[in-house]
Amino acid sequence: MPMSEIEPLGPADVRRAMDRIGGMLHRTPLLESSLLNRWIGHRVVFKAENLQKVGAFKARGAANTLLFLKESGEVPGEVVAHSSGNHAQAAAWACAEVGVPLTVFMPETASAIKQQATRYYGAAVELAPTRREAVRLTAERVERGAFLLHPYDLDGIIAGQGTACLEALEDGPVPEAIFTPCGGGGLLSGTVLAAEGSAPDAVVHGVEPVSANDAARSYRTGRIHEFPEAPETIADGVQTLSVSERTFLYIRRTAGILEVGEPEIVYWTQWLTHLLKSTVEPTAVLGMAGAMRWLRRKPEGRTVLVILSGGNLSAATRARVWESDFLHQVPGKP
Amino acid sequence: MPMSEIEPLGPADVRRAMDRIGGMLHRTPLLESSLLNRWIGHRVVFKAENLQKVGAFKARGAANTLLFLKESGEVPGEVVAHSSGNHAQAAAWACAEVGVPLTVFMPETASAIKQQATRYYGAAVELAPTRREAVRLTAERVERGAFLLHPYDLDGIIAGQGTACLEALEDGPVPEAIFTPCGGGGLLSGTVLAAEGSAPDAVVHGVEPVSANDAARSYRTGRIHEFPEAPETIADGVQTLSVSERTFLYIRRTAGILEVGEPEIVYWTQWLTHLLKSTVEPTAVLGMAGAMRWLRRKPEGRTVLVILSGGNLSAATRARVWESDFLHQVPGKP
Repeated sequence: MPMSEIEPLGPADVRRAMDRIGGMLHRTPLLESSLLNRWIGHRVVFKAENLQKVGAFKARGAANTLLFLKESGEVPGEVVAHSSGNHAQAAAWACAEVGVPLTVFMPETASAIKQQATRYYGAAVELAPTRREAVRLTAERVERGAFLLHPYDLDGIIAGQGTACLEALEDGPVPEAIFTPCGGGGLLSGTVLAAEGSAPDAVVHGVEPVSANDAARSYRTGRIHEFPEAPETIADGVQTLSVSERTFLYIRRTAGILEVGEPEIVYWTQWLTHLLKSTVEPTAVLGMAGAMRWLRRKPEGRTVLVILSGGNLSAATRARVWESDFLHQVPGKP
Repeated sequence: MPMSEIEPLGPADVRRAMDRIGGMLHRTPLLESSLLNRWIGHRVVFKAENLQKVGAFKARGAANTLLFLKESGEVPGEVVAHSSGNHAQAAAWACAEVGVPLTVFMPETASAIKQQATRYYGAAVELAPTRREAVRLTAERVERGAFLLHPYDLDGIIAGQGTACLEALEDGPVPEAIFTPCGGGGLLSGTVLAAEGSAPDAVVHGVEPVSANDAARSYRTGRIHEFPEAPETIADGVQTLSVSERTFLYIRRTAGILEVGEPEIVYWTQWLTHLLKSTVEPTAVLGMAGAMRWLRRKPEGRTVLVILSGGNLSAATRARVWESDFLHQVPGKP
């Protein structure tokens, strides 16, 4: 598994990642709601990565990358990352497991609870006045020899994130379509690889908020689109400025990137919290919102797989989710 | 198992209930948070009844009562209930499973989503201008021969609710103490019986909001205390006016009823939602809030069992839970 130059990964890399990280991670359950299935006339199987270590699939890629480095006898003396989200906690957790010091650069605007959680797992957190400055400080450390645990632009991350889909395909029914959120594209890329190996007839779709549709634009034009600044959306896990050349390799092989509106994201955050009795963050329900768009054009009785990416919400985000009340509008035929 | 006169139940009745209802219900998982355990210095095992059919333990008692009647060849021609909460949905679900018509009388103030869910499971919902009027209409039907599926004052309900604790004792570690919410006392009574049979050294505590402490007052004085009207608390599953003579038999055998404040209830609703990634209603976290009070007087390293009673929240209740932000205050030693 090459870690530095772009040489395409295959399904076998995802399987090797699964063998590598199995002992460190939860094999998360598949969830279903018979009520939801009856209402919409299709079967939706959810892979519950909100129940993963640190509350998000991000633990998979971080664990895979660090264990691969360890296996190869290339454990770095220092690891750095920049993130104010789930990747920071995943990196901190994985580095602690492997016993490598980690410094995470966060913008001062990162919520106190995320700073706290990252420190809890044992990482040093350094605050920068802006996101741009956090990236610059990280680059400085990399120049001095630290290993950058990038949130998506690493083969080890992509292969690791793909293990969520691979497990779901091993444990559940064969789906006709698979839906994941798309931020930097690590989860989507790994999912493409897992599906190509274990469910070659399934179509794979990434899903983005309309307001953060850089991957959709890139897919349509064939050229990576980059936002000048973080787009506004309640799905804070997909506010990345662009995908990378590495992830775009796999994103081009999907059946397309679906775009959904903010009300749909809030609607499904409320309903999946209610029906699955499971804490999901707005980013996590993008797959469901996208699935409903896809199912609209299909006859009843389809089986689809939706990856619920995580369950970490700040109290502020939760308050925003519940300030409206969509639970009076029962889901219906898509 | 006597259904009409008060003849004390024993642990064997809970076991028989478990055999009876096993095929109809989920054997819900035990949840734990290693982070929480580390922070508080004790081990807390949660029985996740929020993941039960209809989202609450109430499905157990309703299923047990109806299956017992069926076994005995005494299936009623009509079942009635009055409830605006989880019992209504549990009754509706269980009656549909057994194939008996059910009418639920609800006050007009019951939320639209609860009316809708109860109708969804196939029950007829009749609205009354007040709670008192709903009770009167129910009594009228009972006089004309309908069977009253009472939310707690039935042996079949008590034995059924006890199966949650019995499963937890079979599946998990032996706890030194067990905590459940206490409304009418059905869950607490069944828990007393299950513990007497399977964990005789464990102390059992019921937990109430201070503002709804009728069971605590009854326990202290030895005489059933009755509120003139429904007490105000965010834990809307324990707003009952009083326990019954039947449940008081078992409640007297607990180690006591702990009383907790509204901020503690909101605090633990936020933290258990966050740590367990599981949807819990305020009533469901009463056991945790009580456990923290009990653990305060104990040396580190205790193991306790907390029954999470349910996960059905209206959007309005969720909004109330998240209007403050307790996630900045990490749980510490009790």
